[in-house]
Amino acid sequence: MTVRVAVAGASGYAGGELLRLLLAHPGARIGALTGNSNAGQPLGALQPHLLPLADRVLEPTTAEALAGHDVVFLALPHGRSAAVAEQLGDEVLVIDMGADFRLRDPADWEKFYGSPHAGTWPYGLPELPGARAALEGSKRIAVPGCYPTAVSLALFPAYVHGLAEPEAVIVAASGTSGAGKVPKPHLLGSEVMGSMSPYGVGGGHRHTPEMAQNLGAAAGQPVTVSFTPTLAPMSRGILATCSARAKPGTTARDLRAAYEKAYADEPFVHLLPEGRWPATASVQGSNAVQVQVAYDETADRVIAVSAVDNLTKGTAGGAVQSMNIALGLPEETGLPPIGVAP
Amino acid sequence: MTVRVAVAGASGYAGGELLRLLLAHPGARIGALTGNSNAGQPLGALQPHLLPLADRVLEPTTAEALAGHDVVFLALPHGRSAAVAEQLGDEVLVIDMGADFRLRDPADWEKFYGSPHAGTWPYGLPELPGARAALEGSKRIAVPGCYPTAVSLALFPAYVHGLAEPEAVIVAASGTSGAGKVPKPHLLGSEVMGSMSPYGVGGGHRHTPEMAQNLGAAAGQPVTVSFTPTLAPMSRGILATCSARAKPGTTARDLRAAYEKAYADEPFVHLLPEGRWPATASVQGSNAVQVQVAYDETADRVIAVSAVDNLTKGTAGGAVQSMNIALGLPEETGLPPIGVAP
Amino acid sequence: MTVRVAVAGASGYAGGELLRLLLAHPGARIGALTGNSNAGQPLGALQPHLLPLADRVLEPTTAEALAGHDVVFLALPHGRSAAVAEQLGDEVLVIDMGADFRLRDPADWEKFYGSPHAGTWPYGLPELPGARAALEGSKRIAVPGCYPTAVSLALFPAYVHGLAEPEAVIVAASGTSGAGKVPKPHLLGSEVMGSMSPYGVGGGHRHTPEMAQNLGAAAGQPVTVSFTPTLAPMSRGILATCSARAKPGTTARDLRAAYEKAYADEPFVHLLPEGRWPATASVQGSNAVQVQVAYDETADRVIAVSAVDNLTKGTAGGAVQSMNIALGLPEETGLPPIGVAP
Amino acid sequence: MTVRVAVAGASGYAGGELLRLLLAHPGARIGALTGNSNAGQPLGALQPHLLPLADRVLEPTTAEALAGHDVVFLALPHGRSAAVAEQLGDEVLVIDMGADFRLRDPADWEKFYGSPHAGTWPYGLPELPGARAALEGSKRIAVPGCYPTAVSLALFPAYVHGLAEPEAVIVAASGTSGAGKVPKPHLLGSEVMGSMSPYGVGGGHRHTPEMAQNLGAAAGQPVTVSFTPTLAPMSRGILATCSARAKPGTTARDLRAAYEKAYADEPFVHLLPEGRWPATASVQGSNAVQVQVAYDETADRVIAVSAVDNLTKGTAGGAVQSMNIALGLPEETGLPPIGVAP
Repeated sequence: MTVRVAVAGASGYAGGELLRLLLAHPGARIGALTGNSNAGQPLGALQPHLLPLADRVLEPTTAEALAGHDVVFLALPHGRSAAVAEQLGDEVLVIDMGADFRLRDPADWEKFYGSPHAGTWPYGLPELPGARAALEGSKRIAVPGCYPTAVSLALFPAYVHGLAEPEAVIVAASGTSGAGKVPKPHLLGSEVMGSMSPYGVGGGHRHTPEMAQNLGAAAGQPVTVSFTPTLAPMSRGILATCSARAKPGTTARDLRAAYEKAYADEPFVHLLPEGRWPATASVQGSNAVQVQVAYDETADRVIAVSAVDNLTKGTAGGAVQSMNIALGLPEETGLPPIGVAP
Repeated sequence: MTVRVAVAGASGYAGGELLRLLLAHPGARIGALTGNSNAGQPLGALQPHLLPLADRVLEPTTAEALAGHDVVFLALPHGRSAAVAEQLGDEVLVIDMGADFRLRDPADWEKFYGSPHAGTWPYGLPELPGARAALEGSKRIAVPGCYPTAVSLALFPAYVHGLAEPEAVIVAASGTSGAGKVPKPHLLGSEVMGSMSPYGVGGGHRHTPEMAQNLGAAAGQPVTVSFTPTLAPMSRGILATCSARAKPGTTARDLRAAYEKAYADEPFVHLLPEGRWPATASVQGSNAVQVQVAYDETADRVIAVSAVDNLTKGTAGGAVQSMNIALGLPEETGLPPIGVAP
Repeated sequence: MTVRVAVAGASGYAGGELLRLLLAHPGARIGALTGNSNAGQPLGALQPHLLPLADRVLEPTTAEALAGHDVVFLALPHGRSAAVAEQLGDEVLVIDMGADFRLRDPADWEKFYGSPHAGTWPYGLPELPGARAALEGSKRIAVPGCYPTAVSLALFPAYVHGLAEPEAVIVAASGTSGAGKVPKPHLLGSEVMGSMSPYGVGGGHRHTPEMAQNLGAAAGQPVTVSFTPTLAPMSRGILATCSARAKPGTTARDLRAAYEKAYADEPFVHLLPEGRWPATASVQGSNAVQVQVAYDETADRVIAVSAVDNLTKGTAGGAVQSMNIALGLPEETGLPPIGVAP
Repeated sequence: MTVRVAVAGASGYAGGELLRLLLAHPGARIGALTGNSNAGQPLGALQPHLLPLADRVLEPTTAEALAGHDVVFLALPHGRSAAVAEQLGDEVLVIDMGADFRLRDPADWEKFYGSPHAGTWPYGLPELPGARAALEGSKRIAVPGCYPTAVSLALFPAYVHGLAEPEAVIVAASGTSGAGKVPKPHLLGSEVMGSMSPYGVGGGHRHTPEMAQNLGAAAGQPVTVSFTPTLAPMSRGILATCSARAKPGTTARDLRAAYEKAYADEPFVHLLPEGRWPATASVQGSNAVQVQVAYDETADRVIAVSAVDNLTKGTAGGAVQSMNIALGLPEETGLPPIGVAP
């Protein structure tokens, strides 16, 4: 089976990573590539590493340009996907890499994004309980945010098995590509190299309600999330350090068993051997996730850590994985299973 | 006044940073430099940036070599300081940059270091309540660990003012120089560049009891510390992201007032204007500390973040600052107040 | 067709990269993995990113361990390959990733390596004139060094077409993985981050005679090479900046034509559009090579620049590409054509 | 003596570094700070590390704002200094950190900058023959470019002593701060981390004629310069790798003697011991320069390498050093002699 794929928003980092993956995907044929301010430019000027597509010219993001494809990926700024999606037929598989259709509660959307809620689509994190079934055959998919991917995979097994109290404290370090390709002074190489700094501190980051949604679903009760993202001096990768008070009676063995059960059959999530901890370099450029968990006896807390590549499993890889499931392809098709290390 | 200063352990990162500072200190004359495995080598082969000392040859760390100095800095592996210190006269100012004399509770020492406790010296973090007075005229000083420096300065004002519950959750990112200069595979540039990874997860890091000691003293009650250190792809700097549940009734205004009061007269600690957050680059190579605090309403937590240079304020700068106080010199003498940025 | 492949020296960076590629190679089945000092350890402890091979235990590098394979890759320290190779049958394809069989002139070998010359094998840089034919069906292949790969591809078209004088001046920047995985102080992350430094200056680098050999063959006359390698603060990648006086009458158009001709049909080497220059990030983790050339009118010099990933096209990717040719497989099989960027 | 100093262009990297140095300069009192598009903003929003000046508000760059100072530093875009300088009185020491007054030949200026030549001021590289005398008491100083500083100090002793042919081939790696603070896509951290790339290849870089001017003056004859700058994944530092054919009869000993003579009494330039090579980390944030030279017997070339911090000795440090000389202060006043390493 070969599907014809369009990418709306091909000039950014998410779009570029998606194209890198699609070029190696045996079931995908790359069709229209669209951009907004970059329409009319050859891709070679915008994504110099995508050498086989260097001469492809970006079209404007219109219904006409996107028509005639089996799959349309939307890598657009937040709030722009709904208008494009509603012009695409029901028979087209639309995969939104933005935030528009991730949240279930309209109040969350409005609080964090300040515009009317567009709806909720099946959620493209197949490792969550029940998620894979909802993706099979679906024609609309909302790809998770990069931080929620890392955090949910780090913590959901503890919540599913009732091992952690519903107050999660999360500090995550992200590579700068998570902040996008629009040049801003604080994202200059001169500023970020050799520097760590937090942002969106105090509950303001837009990925916070998405984490609470995923962890709450796992726990069967609301989970409060304290989330502090930090910018790290690297291009790619998220290291999520997550903790919560242990439920009374929780043991290290309980935790190990819960995580082993959650990830025994997952192709991309690797629960590391005891004593080894995730490193973002180990998953760079791949769809792999590294997870480890420990019980801190003195503080009586569950500590779970995950590493993902924010652009691959955290965005474009998760999108392709979801596409594979929706289309009935083997889930791992076209996805690098191993990071480029060192 | 000019004091004659010896440095035991001049070949490591802490010793090198100390010498960089002492070379610019108008009241210090550098005397004996000692090493262990590197004794007999010229400093130029070990610290290529310390050009004015390139021809100085390291002596073995003996009482003879260290005799005849007004001040002796010990930059030795943990557990080695006591044996050296007891050979030095009571009139000599001995400043230990290792862990040996930091902890008050022998049980903490024995649990984390596995050897008999050597004692407790006045603690070289002058910004803590009462600390400065204890340092004045003292002949023995224990310089804090780099993580405890960052974490204590981030959180103590909240505890002093009763604004935070006594369960602190800390995730800190450190530059690789904190791991020292002994070459190990996981510290190779190839491994650390582009990678974030945690270590000592689950309560095992040796700086944990020191943090609990400082925060507990501020709170007037025991404080439980959950501490997860991470290795960041940069040579220097610590970013400590610290949080604790807010005490009932705590407001953002309370927090701001507490921190303003704590740092109003401190020469090196800068409470940033609201809305700006610390960055390690801003303090690189300096004795400056950046601190910011916020109240997360949804999670009901105090979030405090600090940035220090682990080798300067976190080790050698803190040591010189303490020396200045002990000797009655102006506290800022010889200490760079501003980071090298970008 | 599926071949059974052994890797001698699986614990180093070259071996690890080779395994990353072989895991994705549809025609390769990974057999014995051997090590020397690491024999007996599981690969997961040595190559944490190679998750599917985590439980494989390294055997000692012996003829018994390597027997029974169709292909044996040797990723051994220089000077060790000959003794292993001579124990392998003539029907086995042996691909040496070390230097032992690269040089034609025994005097060059002896001068730079200080031991007796073991011989010369077909040279695994298929893009050089005549090289592909020599590799087809060959049972012995010498994979080029990483610097000679980058430099030869940057300059040989100018020499083949008689456009450059036979005195090449080369300054190349390499990621630290080129220096290997044995921990040494100057390779610590703390030392290399934020720093550029040269090494092997003045003609002493062992890759120099290999470059001279390749460029001389292209020029049909001896080419003198001045080579200065520098260590750059990145894990991977080589940027080779190469220049030579232009032969009288050489024009920019001549150069462009020569390079277009050389690389028109090459699957991995990309002559960039005029005005764009290579970047190592664009080829990271891939077998791609970026090349550009210019004529400096004022200095009357040909300036050619190439970017390769030292571990992929510069070592393990070049080895797999050569294996594909030797076995009659499509040359691009199993090789990532696009770099992981940003 | 205390002089009152104004800085025009205080929001960029050069201006920020200058202020860092002036804050530690015992003879300077910081007066007006001006900006262009940033006028009206507090410095704390633009230079977060300059904590003691955080509340200072930038004025527009006008004659009024700059009046009443003893020294005015101009850190303006190229071509803007002349208009400002002519409004300042002859009694004011004006130090231009831009290119406007560096070149002697108007044709060079017009070719590379495309506007009428404004003139030539005494050149602020005191280590060059005769330069120090021209700076003493001068009221107008042109600070050299960062690349010409590094390259001239690497090569001029060879030319002064007639040891090198007049065709220099230079490849230099620069930290990204050399490209300034205006955000552009190719300067994003995501793009530059892990990547090396050249720019301005083929003779187009504006610093080329300045190098030729300095080396030609040293040689007593025109020197052709082939210059290729590369962008390195670090914030600061220049490593200049320079070579030229040796004049017949040149020996390694001749070279060593020439460089020892040139730098025997220089406070900031360090000719390294034989066998050790410059590293940019060793000079980070300081006015120090590391230089080393070798003779490559096979290629018959002189190879000279230097390391400077592009913002310190390469710009702001060189400016302060020149100010000290012009004012008759000790040359090293207020200048960090040692780099921040590791």
